Order: sequence, then C-alpha cells, then structure tokens
Amino acid sequence: MTDRPDVATLRPLVAPRSIAVIGASDDPKRIGGRPLGYMIRAGFSGPLWPVNPKRETVQGLPAFSSVDALPGAPEACIVAVPAPMVPDTLEACAAKGAKAAVVFSSGFAEMGEEGAALQARVRAIARAGGMRVLGPNCLGIFNAHCDWMATFSSSVDHELPTPGPVSIASQSGAYGSHVFHLMRQRGVGTGIWITTGNEADVDVADAVAYLVRDEDTKVIVAYAEGIRDGEAMRAALTDAAAAHKPVIFMKVGRSAIGAAAAASHTAALAGSDRVYDALFAQYGVIRVDTTDQMLDTAYAAARGRFPNGDRLGIMTISGGVGVQMADAAEDLGLQVPPMPEAAQKTLKALLPYAAVRNPVDITAQAFNDLSLITTNMRLMLEEGGYDVVVAFFTMVAASRFIADDLIKTLEETRERFPDKSIILSLIAPPEIVRHYENGGYAVYEDPTRAVAAAAALMRFGRFFARPPESAPPAMPAGAPSVPADALAEHQAADLLQAWGVPFVDRRFATSTDDARAAADALGGRLVMKIASPDILHKTEIGGVIVGIEGADAAAEAYATLMTRAADKMPGARLDGVIVAAMAPEGVETVIGVQRDPTFGPVVMVGLGGVLVEVLGDVAFRLAPFGVEEARRMIAGLKGAKLFEGVRGAPPADVDALAELLAKVSVFAAAEGARIESVDLNPVRVLPKGRGVVALDALIVPAEKT
Amino acid sequence: MTDRPDVATLRPLVAPRSIAVIGASDDPKRIGGRPLGYMIRAGFSGPLWPVNPKRETVQGLPAFSSVDALPGAPEACIVAVPAPMVPDTLEACAAKGAKAAVVFSSGFAEMGEEGAALQARVRAIARAGGMRVLGPNCLGIFNAHCDWMATFSSSVDHELPTPGPVSIASQSGAYGSHVFHLMRQRGVGTGIWITTGNEADVDVADAVAYLVRDEDTKVIVAYAEGIRDGEAMRAALTDAAAAHKPVIFMKVGRSAIGAAAAASHTAALAGSDRVYDALFAQYGVIRVDTTDQMLDTAYAAARGRFPNGDRLGIMTISGGVGVQMADAAEDLGLQVPPMPEAAQKTLKALLPYAAVRNPVDITAQAFNDLSLITTNMRLMLEEGGYDVVVAFFTMVAASRFIADDLIKTLEETRERFPDKSIILSLIAPPEIVRHYENGGYAVYEDPTRAVAAAAALMRFGRFFARPPESAPPAMPAGAPSVPADALAEHQAADLLQAWGVPFVDRRFATSTDDARAAADALGGRLVMKIASPDILHKTEIGGVIVGIEGADAAAEAYATLMTRAADKMPGARLDGVIVAAMAPEGVETVIGVQRDPTFGPVVMVGLGGVLVEVLGDVAFRLAPFGVEEARRMIAGLKGAKLFEGVRGAPPADVDALAELLAKVSVFAAAEGARIESVDLNPVRVLPKGRGVVALDALIVPAEKT
Repeated sequence: MTDRPDVATLRPLVAPRSIAVIGASDDPKRIGGRPLGYMIRAGFSGPLWPVNPKRETVQGLPAFSSVDALPGAPEACIVAVPAPMVPDTLEACAAKGAKAAVVFSSGFAEMGEEGAALQARVRAIARAGGMRVLGPNCLGIFNAHCDWMATFSSSVDHELPTPGPVSIASQSGAYGSHVFHLMRQRGVGTGIWITTGNEADVDVADAVAYLVRDEDTKVIVAYAEGIRDGEAMRAALTDAAAAHKPVIFMKVGRSAIGAAAAASHTAALAGSDRVYDALFAQYGVIRVDTTDQMLDTAYAAARGRFPNGDRLGIMTISGGVGVQMADAAEDLGLQVPPMPEAAQKTLKALLPYAAVRNPVDITAQAFNDLSLITTNMRLMLEEGGYDVVVAFFTMVAASRFIADDLIKTLEETRERFPDKSIILSLIAPPEIVRHYENGGYAVYEDPTRAVAAAAALMRFGRFFARPPESAPPAMPAGAPSVPADALAEHQAADLLQAWGVPFVDRRFATSTDDARAAADALGGRLVMKIASPDILHKTEIGGVIVGIEGADAAAEAYATLMTRAADKMPGARLDGVIVAAMAPEGVETVIGVQRDPTFGPVVMVGLGGVLVEVLGDVAFRLAPFGVEEARRMIAGLKGAKLFEGVRGAPPADVDALAELLAKVSVFAAAEGARIESVDLNPVRVLPKGRGVVALDALIVPAEKT
Repeated sequence: MTDRPDVATLRPLVAPRSIAVIGASDDPKRIGGRPLGYMIRAGFSGPLWPVNPKRETVQGLPAFSSVDALPGAPEACIVAVPAPMVPDTLEACAAKGAKAAVVFSSGFAEMGEEGAALQARVRAIARAGGMRVLGPNCLGIFNAHCDWMATFSSSVDHELPTPGPVSIASQSGAYGSHVFHLMRQRGVGTGIWITTGNEADVDVADAVAYLVRDEDTKVIVAYAEGIRDGEAMRAALTDAAAAHKPVIFMKVGRSAIGAAAAASHTAALAGSDRVYDALFAQYGVIRVDTTDQMLDTAYAAARGRFPNGDRLGIMTISGGVGVQMADAAEDLGLQVPPMPEAAQKTLKALLPYAAVRNPVDITAQAFNDLSLITTNMRLMLEEGGYDVVVAFFTMVAASRFIADDLIKTLEETRERFPDKSIILSLIAPPEIVRHYENGGYAVYEDPTRAVAAAAALMRFGRFFARPPESAPPAMPAGAPSVPADALAEHQAADLLQAWGVPFVDRRFATSTDDARAAADALGGRLVMKIASPDILHKTEIGGVIVGIEGADAAAEAYATLMTRAADKMPGARLDGVIVAAMAPEGVETVIGVQRDPTFGPVVMVGLGGVLVEVLGDVAFRLAPFGVEEARRMIAGLKGAKLFEGVRGAPPADVDALAELLAKVSVFAAAEGARIESVDLNPVRVLPKGRGVVALDALIVPAEKT
C-alpha cells in the first residue's frame, strides 16, 4: 500500500471534466468508436477531443492528429490503441498533463511474460506521470451522473445508463456488464461502474475507496477474483464501515479452498479464501455467492433503510407460504416472534378467519376490503415491534388501485417508523412493480428471497448500529520479539506467555535433580516433554510421558526422555525436559496464527478433535482485533454450543477465550513479519470464571529471504 | 391407506367427459361463474351443465334447476355452494351417478370442530357414493389437455393455461397458483394442476399417484405442508421412482424441526421434518426450499434429459464467471474434470487466447467467428466426456442469428449424445430465449442457477440409472417379537441379537459365583452393569462398573452393583448383572429406531459424541431398506470422513455398519407397531473387516392404547 496515491487522485478518472479519445474511430460500433458515440448521445458537457491522425472529424467532432496537438490538457484519456503502442501513448498523455487514462487494449499480463513487462511499464509511466490508469485489458468505466462513458461494453449500447444509488466495482468486465444489465432490468440505476481488468494501477480496492467517498453512491457492489493489495482493501472497507455505507461483495474462487479446508492440518486452513470471510465479517460486508443474492441485496439496500434488529413480521395470504417464509427466516438466523396478545385480539376481531400470531395469515378474502390489509400492516408495525415486515400477496395485489391504496394508507406509518422496513412479495406487471417501488417498497416474486433481503438489511443495520468497538488490548510492555531461529516448545511458551498467553504451571529441568525438584514444587500428576529446538514433533519419538506422580517417577522419566531423544534424533540439541502440571478438564480448542499472503497475520480458532479435523470448523480474523470481535469469532463456530456445556459439562469460560484471542491478535500484528505460523494446540477453556490454559506452543519463524 | 380407493377412480376427477356446475353464476367474475366462463372460453367439448334454480340460462348455457333435473349423470361436479349445503349437494351428485366432485366452499375443518364434523360427512358421502371429492376449501383443479377448468383461481383469468409437460399437485391453492403463473412466465406449460385444500378425500398422495400414471405428465411438482397418509405418499413415490418420473417436492415446515434438531437427545431428532428428507432421498425426489429452485428444476427437467453422471463441463466468455460456476459446482458435489490433453491442444490451436482446461474460457472475442463456439462446444461434448455442459454467454449471444447458428450447428452432436445436456446462461429478450428453448436448450440468466439445474438433472439421472436395489435382508427365522412390557437391557440385547445385531461377548450373572465364572470365561478387562427392567438409566445410580479384571474383582463388583441398586432404587426388580467384555476401539455411532407418526418406523444413524450432540449430525431412512440404501445413509453424515480414519486411525468397517442398519430396518419394519423407540448407543464400528459391535441396547415398547 506504500506507493499508492491518495484516493483523491481518482477524481479525474471517475468524473473528468475534459476528455480525449486516443484511437477514436468514426464507426460507433468499433471499440475505438463506442465511447465517443455513447458520450455524444449522452451529451457530455465538457471538451471531448477525438485523436485520429487519419481524419479531420470523428463522429462529427473535429479530430486531432496526436495527443500533442490537443488544444489543452484533457483530464482523462481513453486509450484504444494496440498494446505495443500503449506506453508511448500514455507518456504523451502524461506529458500533455492528463490526470487519468483508461486502457482498453489487451495483450498485457494476461498474455505471458512479455505482456507482463509491458504492463509494468504502464504502471511505471502512471506513477512517474502522476496519472491514474485503469486497465489495461478492461471494459472501462462509466459515470452516469456526468455522462462519462469510457467503455465499449455492449450493455450500454441499447440504452444509456441512468444514474442510480448503486455503484459497481468489478475486476471482470463481462461480469460487471452482466450485473449492470440485470440491475437495470430490476429498476435499479447504476451511478458509477468501474471495471479494473489487469489492474496495472487502479484496482478494486481503489474503486471501493473512491465509492465510499462518493456522495451519490449509496450502495457499493464489488466483484473480485483475487485482491492484489490486502492492506488497501482492508483500509477501504474500514472506511466503508465507518461511513455506514453498505458493501456487497462477490469474491469467487471458493472451490480451490473447499479442497484446502478439507485438509485436517490447520496450516492448510489459513492463507485462503476463508480469510475473505474473516475480512468481510470484520467490516460488515455482505458476501454473496450468486448473482441473485447480489441483485436482491443491492436492490433492497438501495432503499437506504437498515433496521437495527432481527425481528421479522410475516404477513401472508397463504398459510403455507407463511410457513415457507418462517423456514427461511430461521435458516437466516432471524427471530419470528408472535404478535402481542392484545394486538392478536384486535386482529382477530377484524379478520375472524385469520391466523394472527406471526406469520399473520389474512387469507385472500381480506382483499375484499383493502382497509383490512392496511390496518393489519399498521398493527404489525406499530404493535408487533418488528424490524421488517414481509408481506406475501402473490397476484392479488397486482393492481394500480391496490398499490395506490397501500402506499397512501401506510405512508404516515412508514414515516413514523423510518428505521423499519416493509418488503412485498408479489407478482405484477413491471409498471405496477415500479409503482410500489416508487412508493417505497421493495418487491420480490419469490417470498423466500424477500425474507433473505430482509435479513441482509438487518445485518447491515445491526452492524451500522454497533457501539464503537473495544480496541485491541495494549501491547504488553517489554514483550520479547520472535527470534529468527527455530524455537523449542518451552521457549515458544515463555515468549507467548510474555504476550499474555496463560500456560499450565511448568518447570524446566536440565537434570534428574531438577526434575525431582520440579515434581515436588508442582505436586499432583505431571506431564514431561523433551525440550529441543530440533524436535518439533515430540510424540512421534516418544518424547512425551503423561501421568507421572512423585519425584522418583519424575527423575526416571527425565532419564527415559533424554535417552529416547538421543537414540531417535542423534544430532538434536537436547535442552532438557519440560515438567508440567496436568491441565484441568475443559473444552479443547486450537488457536493458530498464519501469515496470509494477501492480508498478513490472521488468527484462527477451532474446536479441538473431530470438529476441526473432520468438519474444518474454524474461524479466522485479521489481526489485530478487540475482545468483541473475538467473541463474534467464537460465536461463528458451528460447534460453539460446546462452550455452553453439553453432557452435563459446565459452561466454559468464553470470556477468557475471547480475551486470549484478542491478545494473540496483538502479538500476531506486532510480530507478523517475523513468524510463519503459531500453533497453540490444545488450548483448554476451563469452566466459567476459571480462565483458559494453553498446553503446547509451536512458533515457526518466518523463512529468511 | 386401507380404505383408499384405487388411483383409477381419480380419472373422472382429473379428466371428466361431462360436467355439472352446482351454484353456477351468470357473472363470470364470481366464484360460481368463473369455472364455467373458463370452460366456455376454452371450448370444453363434452356436456357442460350449469345448475341454478333461479335462471333459465347461465352464461348462455341452458341451466337446470337441480342436480336431479340434469339430463344425465355428469362425470364430475363443481360444487360452489355455502358450506352447510355441501353435504346434501354431494349426496344429490352421488345419487345422480357423478364420479367426482370439486368443492370450493370454505367453512370446514379450517373453522374448528363444527366444520370438522361437516368435513367428516363430506368424506363419508364420498366413500358411500363411490365418488372422489377434491377439497373442500380448495382452489380446484384444471387439466389443460382436455379444457377442464374447475377452478376460480385468478391466475388463469388473464390467460387460459396451455398444456405442457409439468403437472402441479399443491395443498395450497394460493401457492399453487403462484407457481403455475411463474412457470408459465418461464415458458413452461402446466398440463394438470390439482390443489387439494382440506383433503377430505383426495390428498396430495392421490394427486401424485395419478400424475405418475398420466402419460402427458413428464415432471411432477408437489407442494405440501404435511402429509396425512405417509404410506400412501410412500407408495406414490415408489411408483414415481419405478416409472423414472422426476418429482420435485416442496415440503414446508422445516423450522419447527430446526429447533427439535438442535436438541441433543436423539429421541427429539426423529418424528420430524427430517424424516421427509429420508423419504425424498430414498425415492429420488428432489426437495426444494425455494420457489426459484422449484421453477429452475422443473424447467430443466421438462426437457426430459437426465444425464447419468456428475461431470460438469463449463464454457464461459468470462474467466471469473467460470470460477464462480466451478465454486457452485463444488458446493453441489459435482466434478469439474479437465479436458483431455489432446482436446486442450486442439482448442488452444483454435483459440490461442483461451483457457482450455475446464472451465474453458473462450473470451468474448470468440463471438467474432461463431464456428469457434460451436466447434468448442462439440469438442467439450465429444472429447470432454462431460455429462452436462453449461455455457455462460451473458448478453453476447442475444441475437437470433447466433441462436440459429448454435442450434443448427450443434443439432447433430446433440442427437449423437441424447443422454447429455447443454444448458445456457445468457441474457436475451424473451423471444430469443424461447428460440433457444425451442432448439432444445435450457436458458438461465444466473450462471450459478444454471449449474444448480445441471446438478438436479444429473441427480435424477443417477437415480434413474441405479441398478435394481438390493432387497432388505431376510427376516431371521424365529426371531422373537417385542413384548408389551418394559425390557431390561440384557433382554433387549438378547432380542436384538436374534435379529442380527452383534453385541460384545457377555454373560448373565445372578450370583457372585456366576460373576466369577463369567470373568474366567470372558477373560481380559470387563464391564459389569446392573440388569433390571425398572432401571433404564443405569449410570445415574452407579449401576455400571468398568475396567474389572479377574474373578475376584468380578465377584466384588457383583456385590457392589446389587447393593447400590437396592439402595438407590428400592422397588426395582433386580434380575442380576451383565458381565461383558470391554469392546475393542472403533468409531462410535448411535443407531436408533423411532416410530414416526406419519411414516411409521424410521431408522436413524449418527456419529457419537459431539457430532450428534452439538451438530445433530444424524441421518434417517424409512424402514425397511437394503444395504445399498444404508450405505448412502451413512455417506450422508457430515462427519462421514471419520470412517475413513482420521488422526492415524484405521478405516472403519462401513460395510458391516451398513449391513447392521439394514438388519435393524427389517426389525423396525416387522416390529414397528410394538415399539416406541430403540436405542443402540453406542455401536462401535471396528476397523475394516472386523465388523461392528453394539455396547448397549434400550427398547421402549409401544404404549398400550
């Protein structure tokens, strides 16, 4: 992120006041002709200069023979020339004083080494010239607010975009066009559309960062196959969270990780797609896997209401569909609480045949007297205390008359509850749907998709309404750094203990007498383990003995361990033996730190035993983070119920576990560059109030480069 | 199922040759007027007799003053009269010789006791008169093949249905209409549409059974909130499976079970919605949770190709969307194998810029020469060996010209591979989409929905191509029945052993001498448990002692157990003590039998420990079933990987577990009426080749009624 220019430098790229098109074609169907044609049609208000050495005019505009020959500095240039000519063209643009360029041309990094070298030149020219470059190999950008149409996407050919509250940042031009088109079909306008292609300079993180600051953008939709600069993306999402601007993100490539996640080795679980889940969870981003989810969520979010809660009211004219919606609500973790008793009575008096609990089934007969519907909905909003009400009307509400009535009658109620939302599920011709939408209602055909949209709105709402986060714990004063050499277990444990990780009581013995003394000091049953920086997998050489009691047994065990180690690992440095108390019973967990190639140090927690090994039930977070985030991390484990105590076990000390995770995250953030990975396995979570205790520690230092 | 008339009796209800409408209205907008109006518009070819005592003609047809006054016996009657008049009307219909009636009227079981009594009369009249009755409180039925329109649903008002390959059976009229309408919007015709409402006589199982036999119906879509007669539904689905007719089922009400499944007690896991999952798995039904899934699956299945495999070929013009589709494929358990090397070379020669592995990314440029696309697709089908190819073209293929070319060029290839399927994901105007559809292609806007459709087709295909199932094992000769009284553990174990359940070696001791002798005979370490029909939870009273070695220790343990039991449970009958060998190590499972109120005896298997208790990881099947089904049941467990051996454990004897489950299912089917539940907990699955062994058995006999 170090050499990344300030986000303000993107303004000329996203909203230029003057434009040159290099390689402009007179044919509005050709790649070099389309952007010009679109902007002429749209009526771009600033200077628009085609550059074409072979023509006097291009599409009716006076043409210029070269960039040099332009009458002034264009803020942005569109570059539609063959790849080998791109560097010179960009240099000319920069020399002329352009602040931004959009490069359509392909033939760069996607084409192998030679192309990659060409692309490196593009980046160097951009940086040297103080010019932001989009592409190469991209479908470009448009900004419907200012008629800037630097794209050859055919998705705008048939109809120019009309500005709207959603903006799209996509690495893929084809998919970005696909989504833009479908969004428009759904009646949602796209204000700014940025496709980043090869990302020689401007990347998706830049685009998101800009859109966060753009006042016209109310909802950000992003699509990526991979993030080049994790730090920049994290910064952009931090800003989005602070600005309460909803971000909907599709990150593809989960399946590669599917395989990795299946591996039972914890190291294989990190550095992977699941880290994106962590990132998105931390910054309140809604991750979507399908285009439908993306569209549904953006469409709902475009209405700008994000109820802070999880209580869903369901109104239906079909009991069965009410059940179907309740099923979906439960799948999505929503509450479907009943109407208050008094309100149920009022409803029953109005509609004797209705089910009045929640789902409220008013039956299709209610449409004989529309006031019943509006009264009902008002009651649900006013008395039910629901954060969102979803109403299923199928075809029954498909008339302008009913739409008018619903919209008019409920207007006052809706104004009184600006933080609540009503979503409709109905089938109607597009013009009736638009009418409902203009009246403030989101409309879905599929009732379960309406419920999913409600869940998404409330997820944003709860995130935006969160109290300020607890900061990560302070760094312990004088905590030691990780050395460059391999660490033996006892060294790793000592180091981590200084960073706040509690370990079982233990002594270090370098003689049988030490072992005796340790046994006397610790008392009770003991575990003894060989201590050597060269022996990382102690159990495999018989380097661990458990259940030792008393000084004599400890002395004997000491001798046995030293002999075994010397036999099995002849060259290994033998520092001595760890003598440790047997840890009390508790819930077994695994805590790890991995260095993710994109996002840096990541903390992992999993439930020990089959849950992590068979189901890969682990959660990640980017370091550092506070205790609240750690708590949500723990709650995200599939087996989190184990902490509540099953089979008569007492509830476990989740608070202590959360605190430990936050401390480990502080260590990971501070020491990230010096470690490859850390494994605390197992960490036992003791009964509530009694804390946590780590039994074993492994630190793998970063490889020297 | 005993008093259920043969499915052939439904023919007059579904395809009547003559019709009377009782309560016929002259106003085609009223409930009593709509069906008549629809049938007049549709041009029903047989006699159509309105009954209305107040009019000479109804909607232009001569009216009759009563059912009696009709000129002959109508095969089917539509009854649109107030609830109290329904029984007399139906009696008159039956007396006149009608074979079927459709009752729209509400005011029956949905309205409390009085209504239920009225509904019971309806059922009695139907049975006594040999007449099949649909409803009451239903939206009726239509059969587009013969212009029978016995419905007042407004979904047919605007446009009469045109016959198509899909038929719909729905308990809910509102939802049935919703689905029919959306299906038509998707260009899929509904042949027969049956809504069963209160199901006084005809229920969804009847409807499905009829549709299985109906030659015009190629795909059955069913919707239910609950099944009244599990046996009948099972029989209908057995027929559908045998006929290779795809059934797509939405059963709502999962959420009630969500709560139940969360309970860690195994008994709470059965008797529930999850039994429907078992039913659907056993009979190859695809269960859907959303309307989109229902429509997508029916739309794809309507094309009648069900590839037997799981290999997906992906063709795309956007690399990122290719990844997105691969993600979806992995989620759905599909294979995405690479193209053969030789074919990759051929492709690369054709399209130097393409990714040729799979996903095959031909880039949008390929559309400059259409022959590249068709060649590519032919190569994927011919050389790739994929069962389905999904191709993503977004807006690029939205022209009639491209559609014609694709359809024409690939026709021959498609004919050569009639068991393979091609699915397109593209955006195009409806007329272009229809053109592709008519050319034999299913078309989806959302690429991941296209992949889901491919997965559904292949699921049907694999099911239809299954070799004949292994029959359930034979009943063991002379196996004893479950008595009516409570059974002690040793009695339960003896009984189940006779049915083929292997237990650990054990002896029954009624004296310290017996205990000594048993210890000598069994050898090794032992477990001893108190044996009493009155003590079902032995551990709670200290009734189990483990790790006993030698005759003296066994004698002492015998005395201890008898004393403890007498102390803690003074009134209990003490039969003696079970002396058992310690079971060898293995994977712990739980096997249970529950009597489901709808479907009868159900067998459950789960993985012991946290997987079943925290995650509710269990699978059900309706008894009886064969070993193959048991194998699939086991494979369906989330933690099935445990059987492969984790943490260095050897692979477990899954074959023996499957055999045991099949045997338990035979016991459950035979003894189902006499048992409330059976618990084998734990059952240890030993390493491959060494079998399974049950450690404990509990049989709760059925309560006497």
